[in-house]
Amino acid sequence: MPPKVKIGIDLSGSENSPESLLAAIRSLAAGLSTSIELILIGPDRLACHDLPYIAAHETIGMDDAPIIIRRKKRSPLWIGLDMLRKKKIDAFVSAGHTGALVLGAKTMLGMIPPLLRPALLALMPTKQKPIAVLDIGANVRVRAEHLVQFAFVGAAYQRSRGVELPAVGLLNIGSEAMKGTSEIRLAYQKLSQEPHPLFSFAGNIEGKDAFNGHVDVLVTDGFTGNVFLKTAEGMANLAIDCLPDDQIKEPLSHLSYAEYPGALLAGVQGVVIKCHGYSSPQAFVNGIREAIRIVKTNLIKNLAINFFLENDKSL
Amino acid sequence: MPPKVKIGIDLSGSENSPESLLAAIRSLAAGLSTSIELILIGPDRLACHDLPYIAAHETIGMDDAPIIIRRKKRSPLWIGLDMLRKKKIDAFVSAGHTGALVLGAKTMLGMIPPLLRPALLALMPTKQKPIAVLDIGANVRVRAEHLVQFAFVGAAYQRSRGVELPAVGLLNIGSEAMKGTSEIRLAYQKLSQEPHPLFSFAGNIEGKDAFNGHVDVLVTDGFTGNVFLKTAEGMANLAIDCLPDDQIKEPLSHLSYAEYPGALLAGVQGVVIKCHGYSSPQAFVNGIREAIRIVKTNLIKNLAINFFLENDKSL
Repeated sequence: MPPKVKIGIDLSGSENSPESLLAAIRSLAAGLSTSIELILIGPDRLACHDLPYIAAHETIGMDDAPIIIRRKKRSPLWIGLDMLRKKKIDAFVSAGHTGALVLGAKTMLGMIPPLLRPALLALMPTKQKPIAVLDIGANVRVRAEHLVQFAFVGAAYQRSRGVELPAVGLLNIGSEAMKGTSEIRLAYQKLSQEPHPLFSFAGNIEGKDAFNGHVDVLVTDGFTGNVFLKTAEGMANLAIDCLPDDQIKEPLSHLSYAEYPGALLAGVQGVVIKCHGYSSPQAFVNGIREAIRIVKTNLIKNLAINFFLENDKSL
Repeated sequence: MPPKVKIGIDLSGSENSPESLLAAIRSLAAGLSTSIELILIGPDRLACHDLPYIAAHETIGMDDAPIIIRRKKRSPLWIGLDMLRKKKIDAFVSAGHTGALVLGAKTMLGMIPPLLRPALLALMPTKQKPIAVLDIGANVRVRAEHLVQFAFVGAAYQRSRGVELPAVGLLNIGSEAMKGTSEIRLAYQKLSQEPHPLFSFAGNIEGKDAFNGHVDVLVTDGFTGNVFLKTAEGMANLAIDCLPDDQIKEPLSHLSYAEYPGALLAGVQGVVIKCHGYSSPQAFVNGIREAIRIVKTNLIKNLAINFFLENDKSL
């Protein structure tokens, strides 16, 4: 019998109450194989006797600075990351403070060498296959070398989903090599220098073309990526809003990010899934499903092996 | 009788042939008041005898550096901007090289004091009134003081459209004051320092909320704004693509940027409208209509008077 897959779940930090998340998680748990164990981390007050439950005596507020996680060792974020570090769980799912989660994961779990920065990676719908977009919010500013590493990470992620030779594009404001910021131009230059065995470089991609599905990975900094994700979300909701009734809206329902499974915090030594604070309980449950899938595909190990075999000084 | 409104129109630089633009412009011209004159600027080869036509003997390619406009004095961009400078026309409409148009307009027309940088301003649809977004591509990088000026320019533009006290937001990745880049944080601080008589500052706005219509002006740098515009366009097209037939798609047709009237190059001493290279002939014609509207509202004069009366050192 394979060992149990254990998923740690932070019930706080979401705009949904811990109670409503717990109800959705109970439904999920009822249908899961016995090889999967869900371990909840939540507030003191919550009574939960049917699933393993750890009470966290501190909270991290959305206005707190990320560094606060170092002092709040009884917060759900610290407890979850600490359990992940000690291999007591195989993945951690949270809708909590993004900055604190990123900083905590980087320092407590460490990076997969030679990666320098974690990136939040989200799958988004296109006219064809879903596109992996990173970074969608872990790093407000990046250097060219980070963007190049994000290309490798995004490609490895898509390979774990069965895409053989992922096409990787850089999010930019035009297709020409000299477009955009100096960091993007330098990353373009580095990525186009020589063909790479693990992915093909598709050059610059504009926002309007990202949804055609011609590339599998879209690389950007965390500020631009966050604007990209939320703008797509806003426009999808506007489009849905423009249609007269639910039946006609239905083909657009998969464009609504309220149902999205959250983002993978890629690059750290552990599976961390960050859900939107405003995502629905169902989306949160989808995030848990995604965590289970990623643990099963051994993504972290594969990433590490890829980079070990790679031994590419350009990284 | 009021003086004629003269609009200079660059037929080159679009992905549409000059011939197809000319056909659409002829239809427009047939329905215009005799107080409006359209003056075309296009390639040598084109035969046009029914409308005033100026042949341009040089072209500017999309791969050329912006600075090339200084050497190409027989290009449509130089000819149009020169006519605008000499008041031979009241507005200039072009789908040509963005960088060359911005640089040319800034140096040949000059800025409205105390403005430092031109910004491309586009109107976009929301659930309520259209939102003016700037900058959507004139400046890849900006400083906080530029963002603050864009807030004033965007507000003046919306006032010219009849919005009494425009609400101005900063495009950011969260609503909290400390979110985003250092430039945005500083602009936030400057804009929230004291109430302003001409607009209300609505703080940070996320991409997902921009389409709710709660703000009238969305301020951002030209890189992020361009990504915002094109991402919205891409998602709108994806949504339209997901629907089964034309009748059901119809309520979304106004979300398709192919029909958009282009962007105003705001801040320079003259009315310059930049159309997408890939916009349809109809959208290009909409750009000409927008140029006529802006000339009639005396936007440039009003902007200059606003800033003169303002005499605000924070600008």
